[in-house]
Order: sequence, then C-alpha cells, then structure tokens
Amino acid sequence: MLGDMTFFERLAARIQETDSRVCLGIDPRPEAHPLTHPDRFAGDPAQVAKAAVYYFQAILEATAPLVACAKLQAAFFEVLGIPGLIAMAQLIADLKARGVPVIVDAKRGDIGSTAEAYARAYLGDGVFGADALTVNPYLGGDGLAPFAEQAARAGRGVFVLVRTSNPRAAELQDLELRGGQRLYERVAESVAALAEGCRGGARYAPVGAVVGGTAPEALAALRARLPHVWFLVPGYGAQGGRPEGVAGAFDAEGLGAVVSSSRALTYCSDGADFAERAREAAAEMRRAINRALGGR
Amino acid sequence: MLGDMTFFERLAARIQETDSRVCLGIDPRPEAHPLTHPDRFAGDPAQVAKAAVYYFQAILEATAPLVACAKLQAAFFEVLGIPGLIAMAQLIADLKARGVPVIVDAKRGDIGSTAEAYARAYLGDGVFGADALTVNPYLGGDGLAPFAEQAARAGRGVFVLVRTSNPRAAELQDLELRGGQRLYERVAESVAALAEGCRGGARYAPVGAVVGGTAPEALAALRARLPHVWFLVPGYGAQGGRPEGVAGAFDAEGLGAVVSSSRALTYCSDGADFAERAREAAAEMRRAINRALGGR
Repeated sequence: MLGDMTFFERLAARIQETDSRVCLGIDPRPEAHPLTHPDRFAGDPAQVAKAAVYYFQAILEATAPLVACAKLQAAFFEVLGIPGLIAMAQLIADLKARGVPVIVDAKRGDIGSTAEAYARAYLGDGVFGADALTVNPYLGGDGLAPFAEQAARAGRGVFVLVRTSNPRAAELQDLELRGGQRLYERVAESVAALAEGCRGGARYAPVGAVVGGTAPEALAALRARLPHVWFLVPGYGAQGGRPEGVAGAFDAEGLGAVVSSSRALTYCSDGADFAERAREAAAEMRRAINRALGGR
Repeated sequence: MLGDMTFFERLAARIQETDSRVCLGIDPRPEAHPLTHPDRFAGDPAQVAKAAVYYFQAILEATAPLVACAKLQAAFFEVLGIPGLIAMAQLIADLKARGVPVIVDAKRGDIGSTAEAYARAYLGDGVFGADALTVNPYLGGDGLAPFAEQAARAGRGVFVLVRTSNPRAAELQDLELRGGQRLYERVAESVAALAEGCRGGARYAPVGAVVGGTAPEALAALRARLPHVWFLVPGYGAQGGRPEGVAGAFDAEGLGAVVSSSRALTYCSDGADFAERAREAAAEMRRAINRALGGR
C-alpha cells in the first residue's frame, strides 16, 4: 500500500521504479526564459506566475519518468507575491497528481509553536503541504523537534541543513569546536540522535540531512555515520558537484540519497524546446550518477 | 525628510516620538480567541484569515501610538495558506499606512540568487515588502551578503539571528570553539564586519542582530561590542525576559534596540475587550522598560 508508506519508503520505491536518483529543482526565474519573461506580460505578476506554472508543467510532463522527486525553492515563489504562492500550490498539487514526491526547499527554522506552524504549513494537508521540507538547525533542538514530530506523525520527511554546497559554507559550518570536531559534524550528531529518537525500528528515519555535493569527503564520512538518514545533495552541476563526488552519498543498495539540480536541467534552452532539452539533461544526469554508482 | 531616512534612523525617530521601545509581535493564532476561532467560520480559511486581520487591526488601532514598531511572524500566516498570506500583505500595508515600521520575522536563510529572491520579496516593493527582515546565519557569509546589500540599497534593515531566546538555543549557539570563543560570539563578529562594510559612516548600519532577552549577560556584552548594530530582543514576558535584563540591550541614549512581545500583548483577554487590554499591556511594557532604563 503506497498510502501507508512513509516519505522515505516511497522515495526508495520511486528510485527503484525510475532507476533515477535525480531531484528536479524547480526554481522559477521568469526572466531566464523568453516564454516566461516579465516583459512579455507587461510585468503583471499574475500572468508571470501563470506562465511559470505552464513552463514547469511542460518540464514535468517531459521529465517526470526520469526523476526520483522534485524540489521547489520557496524563495522564487515568494518573490512573485500572492500569484507566486498560488503557483507554488498548483505545482505541489500537480506533482502529487503525477505521483512525484515533492520537497519544499524553504529552509525554515524557528521554535516551539512557531516551528509547529511551519511544520503544519509544509508537512500538513494544506495547499503547501509537501512530502518533505528543508529546515535550518541554528536555533537548537527545540527548533528541530517540532518538524521531526510532524514528519513522523504524518509520514513525511524533513531534511536538516548539515553541510551546504555554497562557497562560504565553511565559514560557520566548518568551524572547529573545542575537542576538534567541526560544527557541521556536531549538527550531524544531533540529526542522528533526533533521527534515532523517531525512527521506531524502521529502515529509514523521518529525519534526513542536506549535505552538499561539493564536499565529497564530508559526504562519504557522513554517509558512514548516519546509516538511517537520507541525504538531499545540492550543488550538482552548476555549483561544481561531480557524479563521482556524489556517489559517496549513497548506501550499498544505491539508496539513501537524491541529488538535486535546478538551472542546469530547467533552463538549458532559450527556445521552445526547453522541455525536451530538460528531458535530455535529466536523462544524462540520471545516467551519469548511475554510472558513477556502478563504478564503485 | 522621513522618506530619505533609513529604517534604523526611522526606528530611532519613532522611539523618540512614541517614547516606546516596544515591538508589537503579530502572531495570529486564530484558535487563541473566541472571536477568531476557526470553529466560528466552519474552518473556512479565507474567513479565518479575514477575522485575524480585523482582530489585529483593532489591536493596532488601540496600540499604535504606544509601540516603536511591529513584527509579523511569517509562520502563522503561511500555515493559513493563500488567505493567510493575503492577510500578511494586508497587515503590512495597514502598518505602513499608520507609519509603524514593520519587521517580517521569517528567519529566511539561503544563498546567492535564492537569498536575493528572498531579499527582494521582503525588503522590496512587493506586497510582502517590509522595513526589515530576520535572517539566519547558518549558511555563511554568502547567505547574509545578499540581504545586507538589498537592505543597504533600499534603506531597509536585516536582523541576523545571533543568540536566540529559546530554552535549547545554547546547544548550538553556545558551543565553544577552539580558542575559547562561543559560536554566537563568532557570528556576532561576522555581523559586526558585515555591518561595518555597509555602514558607510552612518550612525547605524543596515544590519542588526537578534539577541534574546533571556540571556542578559550576553546582551550587555554584545551591546558593547556592536555599537552601530541595532538589536531585536525577543523573549520578553512569556519566555522569561525581564525589564532589567533587557535594559542592557540599549545604548546610553536609550536607543539601539527594540523588545518584542506577542502573546502577552495580543492575547491577554478572551473577551471583546482584547484591544483595550492589548493597549494596557503595551503601555505597561513601555513603562516597565523605560523605568528599567531610567534606573541604570
């Protein structure tokens, strides 16, 4: 029964079904393609947002069988105002209808009843209710627990930022603590404890981690230390992550991780062939990652 | 010219005008008052959100002359879906019309063009465009710079989370680094550097800090170290922050900080007198903080 499976069980099944470990990043940048450019709609936000929905629906139609899941970047919807958020809700509904697991990449982080409100917003049954949400650990354990609890209760998932893929991620995340541990390693320990606390004997905990594809050693080390925790791996392609580098994110069965890419998949053509080109790019990314996994 | 002043200059002027250092926290919790309870509207989200707008407009009508600024907690709007976000836009517009500086407490954090999108969403001219935004430092300097740049460009402000007020904040933020510094102290150093980089000789930098009212020693120490940085001080009242404890957040002129309170001001009555009671609570909080400042 698919309906009784948790998010990470469904993600594992979906990877096996599609033979794909690709997470399709949906970051609407209307000015990045002539068909969605704001100038085309005299800047009318409602029409711009609608064009973005059509654009990504065409991409989904072409790529859905080739991707394990999709990730919506909340910022690019929020900047379009109310029409942007309606577009986000529409794309979440569209992904659900297609059976593609959907992650909202909103990097939310707060405490107590505020964190609960975010958790209900993005891991509940409302219009923004996705299968999983990215969250930020800076506020401490009482900032993470409400998300983990909601995920466990609702069969959803959270991905806690552990080690991100940006150039200056090291400034804070790699700080050396007294005793020699790096800050992100301490965060990974907290994630492991939180995951263990709500795993209840299942193969996968409802708590995952965001670990960038630009730091292959960290990725492999964390994989060994967090055997029940799924990884969301950003930074592939445009940001420098390579297939061999991200291979370390996967377990012996080729599960336990998805690798996301946005611009390199969805904005690789200025023409009307954008969806077809997205299909080719997703197929190539799927192949490259699977080849790197086969070569281990 | 009020229009040419930066956010923090306007905030200073507003504190002098209202003699208030109170930041009114707007966290709509519809189930917390009979007049806005979802049961009253058969759970219809549009009506629930509209009732929340009326509720807080009545509170603003009663309290605006007694508060320095207002802070909207994004989570409580997002959990109400599209009608909730329309409500957020309406309250932002209402606050602007009343001349009350408005902070969106969304604790956003991301990198590069994603951070830029958030910055444009909350510090731009769109429907969610506020005077200031709270941001999370976990992603490093390239996660903060786009917010600081947009704030500097648009005469707005950002408040970077440095030391929060929640019970388990210490788990991460108080970690001791090699060399003896605490993590939040290192973050405060980055904030100071970022602030200095965009201050341009003005009295106040466009970059502020969130420092909880529940850690008075940290507050006073940071005040001394960050002379050009405004503090947003949560944790007053319900969370245990006391007037004497938050006094250390202010400079010698009684400026440089605002102290926020939400539930204790806006949900202190179950009856129809909620706005009048909010007025009394805001007046009492204003008095208590001013008294503590006078007693230094």
